[in-house]
Amino acid sequence: MLKVAVIMGSDSDLPVVEKAINKLKEFGVETDVRVMSAHRTPEAAAEFATNAKANGFGVIICAAGKAAHLAGVIAGHTTLPVIGIPIKSSTFDGMDALLATVQMPSGIPVATVAVDGAENAAILAVQMMALSDEGLADKLLKMKKDMAEAVMKKDAAIQAKFA
Amino acid sequence: MLKVAVIMGSDSDLPVVEKAINKLKEFGVETDVRVMSAHRTPEAAAEFATNAKANGFGVIICAAGKAAHLAGVIAGHTTLPVIGIPIKSSTFDGMDALLATVQMPSGIPVATVAVDGAENAAILAVQMMALSDEGLADKLLKMKKDMAEAVMKKDAAIQAKFA
Amino acid sequence: MLKVAVIMGSDSDLPVVEKAINKLKEFGVETDVRVMSAHRTPEAAAEFATNAKANGFGVIICAAGKAAHLAGVIAGHTTLPVIGIPIKSSTFDGMDALLATVQMPSGIPVATVAVDGAENAAILAVQMMALSDEGLADKLLKMKKDMAEAVMKKDAAIQAKFA
Amino acid sequence: MLKVAVIMGSDSDLPVVEKAINKLKEFGVETDVRVMSAHRTPEAAAEFATNAKANGFGVIICAAGKAAHLAGVIAGHTTLPVIGIPIKSSTFDGMDALLATVQMPSGIPVATVAVDGAENAAILAVQMMALSDEGLADKLLKMKKDMAEAVMKKDAAIQAKFA
Amino acid sequence: MLKVAVIMGSDSDLPVVEKAINKLKEFGVETDVRVMSAHRTPEAAAEFATNAKANGFGVIICAAGKAAHLAGVIAGHTTLPVIGIPIKSSTFDGMDALLATVQMPSGIPVATVAVDGAENAAILAVQMMALSDEGLADKLLKMKKDMAEAVMKKDAAIQAKFA
Amino acid sequence: MLKVAVIMGSDSDLPVVEKAINKLKEFGVETDVRVMSAHRTPEAAAEFATNAKANGFGVIICAAGKAAHLAGVIAGHTTLPVIGIPIKSSTFDGMDALLATVQMPSGIPVATVAVDGAENAAILAVQMMALSDEGLADKLLKMKKDMAEAVMKKDAAIQAKFA
Amino acid sequence: MLKVAVIMGSDSDLPVVEKAINKLKEFGVETDVRVMSAHRTPEAAAEFATNAKANGFGVIICAAGKAAHLAGVIAGHTTLPVIGIPIKSSTFDGMDALLATVQMPSGIPVATVAVDGAENAAILAVQMMALSDEGLADKLLKMKKDMAEAVMKKDAAIQAKFA
Amino acid sequence: MLKVAVIMGSDSDLPVVEKAINKLKEFGVETDVRVMSAHRTPEAAAEFATNAKANGFGVIICAAGKAAHLAGVIAGHTTLPVIGIPIKSSTFDGMDALLATVQMPSGIPVATVAVDGAENAAILAVQMMALSDEGLADKLLKMKKDMAEAVMKKDAAIQAKFA
Repeated sequence: MLKVAVIMGSDSDLPVVEKAINKLKEFGVETDVRVMSAHRTPEAAAEFATNAKANGFGVIICAAGKAAHLAGVIAGHTTLPVIGIPIKSSTFDGMDALLATVQMPSGIPVATVAVDGAENAAILAVQMMALSDEGLADKLLKMKKDMAEAVMKKDAAIQAKFA
Repeated sequence: MLKVAVIMGSDSDLPVVEKAINKLKEFGVETDVRVMSAHRTPEAAAEFATNAKANGFGVIICAAGKAAHLAGVIAGHTTLPVIGIPIKSSTFDGMDALLATVQMPSGIPVATVAVDGAENAAILAVQMMALSDEGLADKLLKMKKDMAEAVMKKDAAIQAKFA
Repeated sequence: MLKVAVIMGSDSDLPVVEKAINKLKEFGVETDVRVMSAHRTPEAAAEFATNAKANGFGVIICAAGKAAHLAGVIAGHTTLPVIGIPIKSSTFDGMDALLATVQMPSGIPVATVAVDGAENAAILAVQMMALSDEGLADKLLKMKKDMAEAVMKKDAAIQAKFA
Repeated sequence: MLKVAVIMGSDSDLPVVEKAINKLKEFGVETDVRVMSAHRTPEAAAEFATNAKANGFGVIICAAGKAAHLAGVIAGHTTLPVIGIPIKSSTFDGMDALLATVQMPSGIPVATVAVDGAENAAILAVQMMALSDEGLADKLLKMKKDMAEAVMKKDAAIQAKFA
Repeated sequence: MLKVAVIMGSDSDLPVVEKAINKLKEFGVETDVRVMSAHRTPEAAAEFATNAKANGFGVIICAAGKAAHLAGVIAGHTTLPVIGIPIKSSTFDGMDALLATVQMPSGIPVATVAVDGAENAAILAVQMMALSDEGLADKLLKMKKDMAEAVMKKDAAIQAKFA
Repeated sequence: MLKVAVIMGSDSDLPVVEKAINKLKEFGVETDVRVMSAHRTPEAAAEFATNAKANGFGVIICAAGKAAHLAGVIAGHTTLPVIGIPIKSSTFDGMDALLATVQMPSGIPVATVAVDGAENAAILAVQMMALSDEGLADKLLKMKKDMAEAVMKKDAAIQAKFA
Repeated sequence: MLKVAVIMGSDSDLPVVEKAINKLKEFGVETDVRVMSAHRTPEAAAEFATNAKANGFGVIICAAGKAAHLAGVIAGHTTLPVIGIPIKSSTFDGMDALLATVQMPSGIPVATVAVDGAENAAILAVQMMALSDEGLADKLLKMKKDMAEAVMKKDAAIQAKFA
Repeated sequence: MLKVAVIMGSDSDLPVVEKAINKLKEFGVETDVRVMSAHRTPEAAAEFATNAKANGFGVIICAAGKAAHLAGVIAGHTTLPVIGIPIKSSTFDGMDALLATVQMPSGIPVATVAVDGAENAAILAVQMMALSDEGLADKLLKMKKDMAEAVMKKDAAIQAKFA
């Protein structure tokens, strides 16, 4: 099975990114977790992205805050789909990271999820890989049903509370 | 090969969305183009999304402006990856559509591209499908090289102009 | 008397939404409180909205955060007036929810109140129902007088404090 | 039948507001159209609002731009539901008017629609009055079906175009 | 000497507004402190503003948050200069109050100071009254010198610390 | 009578600023119109402000765009009231100028009006000077009545049009 | 003398960037003008930046729009000062480019100028090089005097016009 | 060696500014630390800036919050490069300071770094001085290598943790 890379721009992003890692594990997806910086270790990032496909990766998830260039820089060096998680930092509530991640120029898309939306980044990666993996597709369907059931249980509880 | 659905919330979005359609054609991807509204034809949208996988679709691209709910509503009814294009409308420069598309709750991701970023939506869809289609992967690589060469030509021209 | 539905996208919204529930109780309006998600339980939401009028509801209040699609999705399935409460979440101070709730396309209005403005959502629902219910209209008038008196008492206290 | 008042803060708002007036006419709702200013003719506005219920009005629609106080000021003098249309002016794309209209304090709601969303203001007023008028409710249902059919026609046309 | 009115929309604004009251006291300006609401006690506000000049007031300072209509409503009923203090509330960092206060239409200015800028509102009021009161003008000059000296002392301390 | 200075940061601001000049003329206020830059001619600006009171000025109106420092810099050199007009330039719709004008630190207020609100700056200056000039106060009252009548005429015309 | 590189992300940025090129010529600074893309020709950009110091460059000016990564990517590969010009594109008035340029993480600064502020980027580059080049320092001083005189001429003209 | 001035608008900015001071010390750059206010001690600021070059300064770093005029005012009085640090204050997350610092008019650049980006301001100053000081250039290169190694260590740790 193709692997998913989870790259964070700084290890201070781990509390958010961990939700992506855990979710990928739930789906049984093999995951490499890395710290790379578009600005501090640009050669390492470029090399990783350039060789990612050959090294068995299918999707690359990048998490970065502020002027979040990581996902865009990685996307510049690969044809694999790149998912960007804008990380909320000490100012602007993550709007800087969101715009720096999503407003990519034509030719180099970054599939952007919500600010701090690590769990959805993982699910999106699984959805991509499920296009050629019915086992993953089945797990996604099950997750969707579980989510619906969880909401319905809460609905029942609230109805009971206010009846 | 899996098909890609391109759904727009209103046919007034076509001038933007057409770039996605053309790009998908360039890659030889079979495409269904639809007009559906999360608010005006919610049943049609729900039905389409629910059956999309069974009907041979691999990726669904949704374009909508203002309170852009289309991508999120489609994503609620399928486990296929859904790509959202926020459309710039008469006010707020597309910020309303961007936030309404990207800020999805956990469990239901929408892979969001730039405001009016239709071409990138198409490329992203191709990247997803290329995970299991080396022909598409080769075409992506060629596109990347062509883009680089086009920039280098422009670089040469600018250098000549100001030398 | 017509009932008012109070739907929240997640039971984590309850601390805010509870103010609407309590205010409706004060007015003696029968209220159904529900948890439904535009994305996780879209069928339940669609079904509820489609049958709401037949089931004796007059107004539907929807509270949701982030890419707040709930009010719009409900409004797509009913001709009843729908009131949207944008909920402030961990980022953007509720601006994402406000824009996703208020910027509805022509044909499908959502009556939007302030971010976290649950009490006003309830009062607005009562104002709508009071159009054909003089008892409610009288209660609204009384509430207005009580509010004015409360302000005037505070005014007197402040005047005394700084005299 | 209850009347609907349509008040604009300046007659320069008429090109936008006219869509509300026309839509109300389509529904056969009697409408009074007025120019009043929260700042230039505050007494007239206060008097109108204070007597609106007694004068046979059911809903008051207010359109204003910039520091849009009109809807809030009217709402301060009546218990009728007040609908606010934030008008886009020469700067800030209507964000000033949106915030000045929607962010009302507890006790005095304004049912806010999208920036320049005049048509939806009218439909919302009709929805409110339809709570006690089945004729209007039927017309709303018909409008909803017509909208859906219009979208489906456009969908068919687009499908044909790109087939 | 003319009096200054300090009106707050809610007594919860007092912790901010108190800085204005104290500063006015420092200048020996007679001050009336009031709680009035543009929406809850509009008649009281209108009456106060209409009679303010006759009652010996020279300047009216208004503090309000969210959809801050108070200053504008007061300004609609008087020809006295009105100073608006936008108050930061639970959301949007006071941007809603700032825009609702400063973006007044032609003919009805509100002299707006910074969000929560109560002290400056007081100083501005004193500057206005000092146009015809050399005693106040002298006190302003002294305050300016004191401020400069305070900065210079801090400058000396910092220089010493890092020398 | 005290004079009013109208200073613009660039003569390209004249089309907006001219409305202030004309309005001051209507009130018969003597006006000096200047071009000064907080950044290009800081000494001239400092000197003007330092001597403004001695030179017979009562109020200083400053208009500037982008990082609009002019009003703040002038205010740093005088105890006269300073009115700031944020000018809308090619980007950000004047938000940069608004924040750079209004968000002054404690001790140095700038009385800020709306973006491009030149007419209101003039009226505000007249209101300040009218505190000790009943002739001006009478003219303000007349202007207020004229404005109200103009609105009422437009109201009558609209009522007639839609009756 | 050290050279200045002027790099634009796309040749469509030339109309803005040309002002920087012309200004550098005025100062007699040798300039290389290039088109490079952080995403389309990342290797070329990395190589250029890595060797820029050795190739005789002193300062690198980078202009880019949308998710403007160019300046940050260049800065990641050099210890030379990098100046970023955020370019206004079709949406968000350049706010996306501003935040993506200025919000750099610790360790990798980008000296950011105003949106479309190409002329200032050139002047800033000259200021840096003037630290060790008194000829350039003299030219800067002369430019400053010329600017002041130009403002004073405009001031005289305006004074004459309104006298 | 040229000195670097570090000026803060208020000594409350010291906790942020201290990072710049410490970083400059690390590079062995002589630094003068000052408190000056564009509004409270404008003459001192003007005098300092006017004489800075003659007094041996090479770069001036200015930190200020809210309507942050300090960097612009200093830049108006010198031809030295001026670096602006926008300081986050109690409201707007530093957006006011960022815009007031970066949006300078043509002719007077301010090299702006991230909100609270004091460390980068110091590094940028060193980069400027390193243009004529190979010792500093070597230290910058070493810092860059150290940063890369620190990231690579963290990368190794994360890889180990999730392997």
